[in-house]
Amino acid sequence: MKYKLVQDAYGKNAINLSKVTRHEAYHEFRQISVNVSLQGDFETVYTQGNNRKILPTDTQKNTVYALAKDHFVSSIEDFAIHLANHFFSNNPQVSQTTIEITEHLYSRMSFDGSEHPHTYQSKGNEKHVTTVVQDAHKTSVTSGIKGLLILKTTNSAFTDYIKDRYTTLKETTDRIFATECEATWVYNSYKLNFAELFEKVRNACLRTFAFHNSLSVQQTLYAMGEAVLEENPEIKEISLIMPNKHHIPFNLQQFGMENDNEIFIATDEPFGYITGTITREEEN
Amino acid sequence: MKYKLVQDAYGKNAINLSKVTRHEAYHEFRQISVNVSLQGDFETVYTQGNNRKILPTDTQKNTVYALAKDHFVSSIEDFAIHLANHFFSNNPQVSQTTIEITEHLYSRMSFDGSEHPHTYQSKGNEKHVTTVVQDAHKTSVTSGIKGLLILKTTNSAFTDYIKDRYTTLKETTDRIFATECEATWVYNSYKLNFAELFEKVRNACLRTFAFHNSLSVQQTLYAMGEAVLEENPEIKEISLIMPNKHHIPFNLQQFGMENDNEIFIATDEPFGYITGTITREEEN
Amino acid sequence: MKYKLVQDAYGKNAINLSKVTRHEAYHEFRQISVNVSLQGDFETVYTQGNNRKILPTDTQKNTVYALAKDHFVSSIEDFAIHLANHFFSNNPQVSQTTIEITEHLYSRMSFDGSEHPHTYQSKGNEKHVTTVVQDAHKTSVTSGIKGLLILKTTNSAFTDYIKDRYTTLKETTDRIFATECEATWVYNSYKLNFAELFEKVRNACLRTFAFHNSLSVQQTLYAMGEAVLEENPEIKEISLIMPNKHHIPFNLQQFGMENDNEIFIATDEPFGYITGTITREEEN
Amino acid sequence: MKYKLVQDAYGKNAINLSKVTRHEAYHEFRQISVNVSLQGDFETVYTQGNNRKILPTDTQKNTVYALAKDHFVSSIEDFAIHLANHFFSNNPQVSQTTIEITEHLYSRMSFDGSEHPHTYQSKGNEKHVTTVVQDAHKTSVTSGIKGLLILKTTNSAFTDYIKDRYTTLKETTDRIFATECEATWVYNSYKLNFAELFEKVRNACLRTFAFHNSLSVQQTLYAMGEAVLEENPEIKEISLIMPNKHHIPFNLQQFGMENDNEIFIATDEPFGYITGTITREEEN
Repeated sequence: MKYKLVQDAYGKNAINLSKVTRHEAYHEFRQISVNVSLQGDFETVYTQGNNRKILPTDTQKNTVYALAKDHFVSSIEDFAIHLANHFFSNNPQVSQTTIEITEHLYSRMSFDGSEHPHTYQSKGNEKHVTTVVQDAHKTSVTSGIKGLLILKTTNSAFTDYIKDRYTTLKETTDRIFATECEATWVYNSYKLNFAELFEKVRNACLRTFAFHNSLSVQQTLYAMGEAVLEENPEIKEISLIMPNKHHIPFNLQQFGMENDNEIFIATDEPFGYITGTITREEEN
Repeated sequence: MKYKLVQDAYGKNAINLSKVTRHEAYHEFRQISVNVSLQGDFETVYTQGNNRKILPTDTQKNTVYALAKDHFVSSIEDFAIHLANHFFSNNPQVSQTTIEITEHLYSRMSFDGSEHPHTYQSKGNEKHVTTVVQDAHKTSVTSGIKGLLILKTTNSAFTDYIKDRYTTLKETTDRIFATECEATWVYNSYKLNFAELFEKVRNACLRTFAFHNSLSVQQTLYAMGEAVLEENPEIKEISLIMPNKHHIPFNLQQFGMENDNEIFIATDEPFGYITGTITREEEN
Repeated sequence: MKYKLVQDAYGKNAINLSKVTRHEAYHEFRQISVNVSLQGDFETVYTQGNNRKILPTDTQKNTVYALAKDHFVSSIEDFAIHLANHFFSNNPQVSQTTIEITEHLYSRMSFDGSEHPHTYQSKGNEKHVTTVVQDAHKTSVTSGIKGLLILKTTNSAFTDYIKDRYTTLKETTDRIFATECEATWVYNSYKLNFAELFEKVRNACLRTFAFHNSLSVQQTLYAMGEAVLEENPEIKEISLIMPNKHHIPFNLQQFGMENDNEIFIATDEPFGYITGTITREEEN
Repeated sequence: MKYKLVQDAYGKNAINLSKVTRHEAYHEFRQISVNVSLQGDFETVYTQGNNRKILPTDTQKNTVYALAKDHFVSSIEDFAIHLANHFFSNNPQVSQTTIEITEHLYSRMSFDGSEHPHTYQSKGNEKHVTTVVQDAHKTSVTSGIKGLLILKTTNSAFTDYIKDRYTTLKETTDRIFATECEATWVYNSYKLNFAELFEKVRNACLRTFAFHNSLSVQQTLYAMGEAVLEENPEIKEISLIMPNKHHIPFNLQQFGMENDNEIFIATDEPFGYITGTITREEEN
C-alpha cells in the first residue's frame, strides 16, 4: 500500500435531547446537543469496507438517550465523562472517545417575585459546552462558553499603533468595545464540581471585561484569562476568542452635524479576530 | 399598455445603528435595525426608467443615521413615527411610508447586586419590533415580539382529536409545550407610552402561557391574546404565531427501560404552526 | 364574548421528504419540504379547547408521506393540488386548505459527456416553490423561484435622482447590479404543464435581466415581469422582489491608486429592497 | 509572572471583495472573502497594552483591497501567497502570517448555446477555499472544497456491523448516500497551477463518489482520498469530512402500504460525522 490513513474518527453529531426532572417544588428542564466521536483500530473499515468493528452512529444515538435517564443528573461535564467511559469500556477496538455537549440554557420565569415551578424562557445565544476525551491513559475535561455577546460603551482605547501607507483608522481613546466572546478552559481533574466552577469562570470573565481599562482587545483578553487562572487553581489553561464587533462612528459632519461619539454603524463584517491562550508557568 | 403595476415599494433594509446616550449615572446603549419603504407615484420609474422621483435608498440610510441623533431618544415606536413622518412630509411623490424597526435587546451587567454603569450583555434572540405606516389619512402603529422561546414542562394536554387511517399520534394529558412565540399587536393611537405598553403586553403573554391549563396550542394562544386585549384598552387587535417545537418522548421500552415522561428528542423540524388573530367585537 | 377570532390557521411545516423513482435508464431523485395549513370552523378549538374538529398536525405529516408514494409523480404543483384536495375533501370542518411546497434542486452529475444514472449534486440556494389554495369555490396555483442570486457587471446605471441635504451617493452610468431575486406568479388554471411553464418563466426572467440596459433596479424588475406576462398567457400576475446587493467601489485614491471600476466591497447589509407586482390590464 | 501566553493571533476576518476584469470578449467576475491572521512577538501587546507592534486589522483590510487590484489576477492560492508574503515581509515583528480565502463561485449565463458576456449566476453553496501559511522557513498551501452537497440513490450498503442492546438500525444493501463533503488537501509546493489542480481534485472526488460500490461512508471516503493522491503527485495529503445526511425510509406499512425504498424522511439532525486523513507512505 502506498497510502496510509493517519487520522480517522466517526460518530454521531447533534443528538438533541431534553430531560425533565420532577423535583418536589419545581420541574427542572435541561436541553443539550451531544456529539459522539470514536477513534481506534478502524484501518480495515476504511480500506476494505469491513464493518465488523463499527458501532453504528445510530446505536451511539440510542445509547445517549438511554444513558441520559440515569446519568444526566448534574453537570454536562459529568454526563460527558460517563458517556466517554461507556463507549470506551464497551468497545475494545476504540482507543479514544470524544464527547462534546452543548447546553441550551433556560431560566425559570418569575412572576411577582417568585419563580414559576414549570415555565421556562430561553437564555438566548449563550451556550455552555464541554469536551471530554478519554483514552487508555487519561480522561481530560475542557469546558467553555460560546455566544457570549457583551459590550462596554467606554473605557476602551486604541492608540499608538503602526501607521503605514494603507492606514486610515483614526486613534481613539474612547470607543465601543463589543465582542461575542468564546472561552475554553482545561481542567486539571475530572472529579470536580463543574457546575460551580463554570459560574466562577464566567463571572471572572464578565467582571474583568467590565472593569478593565482597555488599551486593546488583546490586553483585555489577557486580563480576563489571567483572572480566571488566578481565581481557579483547578484550571490549567484558558483560550479566548474575542472577535471585535465594530461599532463605527457615523460621519455626521458631512451634514453639518456633530457626532459626539453617540451614533454608530453596527457592523457584522468584516470583523477583527483576536485570540490567545494563557497557561500557568511550569514551576521548577 | 397591456400591463399595469399594481403594487410597488422600494427602500433600504437592515440599516444597523447603535446609539450611546451618556446619562449622569450610566451609559444607555441601544441597537436597532431599520427598514424604510416608500410607496407612491413611481409608475414612470418602473416603466420608463425615469428616476426624477426617486429618493435613493442610500440617502434614506444617511437620513436614518442623521435623524437618530436628535430623534431616537425613547421608544422604537416614537423613532419610527418620526422617520415615517419625515419621509412622508419631504417627498410629495410618496403616498405611503413604512418604517420597520427591530431592537436588539441588551441588559446592563450586575456585580455584587448593583448594575455596572456601562457594560452590557445581549438578551439573546428575543427582539422587539415595530411597524409604522403613514399615509395622507393616518399613522398606524403595530408592535411585536419575535424570537420569544418559551416552554412549560406540564399543564399541557392534547386529547380527543380526529383519528383517521393516517393517525399514529397518541393522546397525552401531560406533554412539554415549547414554542418560539411571535406576537404582533395594533395600537389605536400613535400617541402612547409605547415602552410601558410593551412591557405590559409581554408580561400578559408570559403570565397567561405559564398559568394556563392548556388543552391545545390553539386554546393557549387564544387565552394569551384575550389577556392582552383585556388588560390593554389601547390595543385593537393581536396576532399570535406559535410554532409547536416538539419534544417527543424517546422510546426507552425497546431497551427494557421505562420513560416516565422524562427523556425527549428535541426536534426542530417538522413543526406544528398555529396562528390566530383576536380582535375586539365592534360595539353597536 | 367581547373578543372574536378573525383569522386562524394551523398545520404542519417543514415536512421534509425525498423520493427515488427507479426509471429504467436512471434514478430520479426529488427532495421537497411541505407545509400544510388548514382554516375553517375552529372557533371552539381556540375558545374552549374542544379538539373534536382537529386533524392533528402529526397526522397531516403522515398523510403527506403516504400520499407521496402514488401522487408525487410530476411537478410540485400537481402534488400540492392533490394534497390540498385530499385535506379539503376529507375534512368537512375545513373551509380552506393551503399547501406550500419548496423543492430543493439537484442535477445529475456528468462524466465524459454523459449523465451518471444515479449520482446527483445540489444546485444550491435556488429553490422552486408553489402555493396551492383550495376552498369551496376554486383552486388557485401560485408558483415561484427563491434564492436566485444573479448579477451583471455592466449595462446598469443610476442617475438623475433626487438630491437633498442627506445625499452622498454619486451618480453612475456603470455599476454592478446584483440581486437575490424572488419571483412569484399566479396561474389562471390548475390544469397546466407546470414543469414546462416553470422553465419558461425562469428563462424569461434571466434573459431579460441579462439583456436589459438598466436605468434602475425598478425598471429592470418591471421589464422582467412584462416579459413573463408577454410570453405566458397562462400567467395572470407576477410579483418580483429584487434586493439590491451592493458592490461598492473601494476608495483606492486615498492610497494614490486608481479604481477603474474594478475593486469593490461586497456587502450584505444594508441593502436596497425593490418590489413590484405586474398584472394584465383588464379588458373591457 | 506566573502565567504565560502560549498562543496568540489576531487579524481581520470576512474582508468581502469583488473584482471585475474586463477582457475583450467578456467580463470576468470574482467574489472572495479574505481572513488575515498575524502571529509573532506580541507578548507586550497582551500583557501591557503596548500597541507599537500592532498593525491594525483595519489597515490589514485596506491592504487586501489595495493589493487586489494588481495581484488578484488568477487563483485564490496565488493571491493568498502574495498577501501572506506582503504582511510577512513588511512586519518584522510577525513570525507567521496566515491568509484564508473563500471563493464564492459564479458561472456565466448561457442563452441559445452561447455564454452571455457579463451576466452571472451563483453556483450555490459549494465554495473553494485556501489557507496559506508563511513563516521564516516556508510557505505552505492548503486548498479545499466546502459545501459540496452530493448524493447517490444506490450502490451504497451498510451491513455486518456490531449489534448490542441499544441497536435498532436494520442492515441494508441499498440506501441513499448523501453528504455535504468537505475536502482539504496539502500541496507540496507553492508554485503550481492551482486552478487546474483544483478541478482535477474536485473531479477525482466526484467520480470516485459516483462509481464506488460503497460498503460504508468510511470506505468511500478513503477511496476518494486515494484517487486524489493517485492522480495528483503535487498533493501530499488529503483530509475528508463526510457527514452522513440521513434519508430514512418512512414506515408506510403502518398504513398497509409498501415502501419499496422510495419514500424517505430527509433529516438534518442528528447526522453521522465521518472523517479521515490519507497521506503518502514515506519512502525509505
